[in-house]
Amino acid sequence: MLDQKTRESSVIASDRVEGTNVYGANGDKIGSVKRIMIDKTSGQARDVEISVGAFLGMGGELHSLPWQKLRYDTELGGYKLDVTEDQLRKAPTYSDNDRDRQFDREYQNRVYTYYTVTPYW
Amino acid sequence: MLDQKTRESSVIASDRVEGTNVYGANGDKIGSVKRIMIDKTSGQARDVEISVGAFLGMGGELHSLPWQKLRYDTELGGYKLDVTEDQLRKAPTYSDNDRDRQFDREYQNRVYTYYTVTPYW
Repeated sequence: MLDQKTRESSVIASDRVEGTNVYGANGDKIGSVKRIMIDKTSGQARDVEISVGAFLGMGGELHSLPWQKLRYDTELGGYKLDVTEDQLRKAPTYSDNDRDRQFDREYQNRVYTYYTVTPYW
Repeated sequence: MLDQKTRESSVIASDRVEGTNVYGANGDKIGSVKRIMIDKTSGQARDVEISVGAFLGMGGELHSLPWQKLRYDTELGGYKLDVTEDQLRKAPTYSDNDRDRQFDREYQNRVYTYYTVTPYW
């Protein structure tokens, strides 16, 4: 849930985005945001790392999603995707022990192809 | 300190930036990054909130700095500003109890004027 000032502002704090719930196209809760991957030089958010099926912050699978796939839904108080949980589950994934995966262009290529988003690189 | 994969990549995780040390133009440690303010729609990082003079994470004063003012310095293992601590201390500031200040255009105007950065709004 966002407070008044955050709702009115055009910006949001990074530590506010982290931990925010993520919902599927049908409104079901899928998981939550772990972190945002930001371009070091330009400061542009590129991907959002989402944790799905984690229990008490442990385990679960990680998905790296293009920033464009996230829309903040004020009623849900979280980010709503335009895909269902089932579609997300079928997307390229990686485990918490394999986090370097998200830096891998081959993995990223599969993600951007899966979501039909034009790569930023 | 960044690991190998993070160093090589063009992106960095938001929770990696948070807590990173900030150094002045002369290399002295000034404070640390609290959070990044990100444009909700475009995902562009606008400002970085820096904590100066805090003790065990408490107290201290907060400064909102345009993203462009931060440069990652691999030798220092943190962000190096092109201003000194003294110059930063003289910049518009706010306290932890007054965090809404950073959303205030009047405050932002003074910050951007002080650092001679063209406002994004």
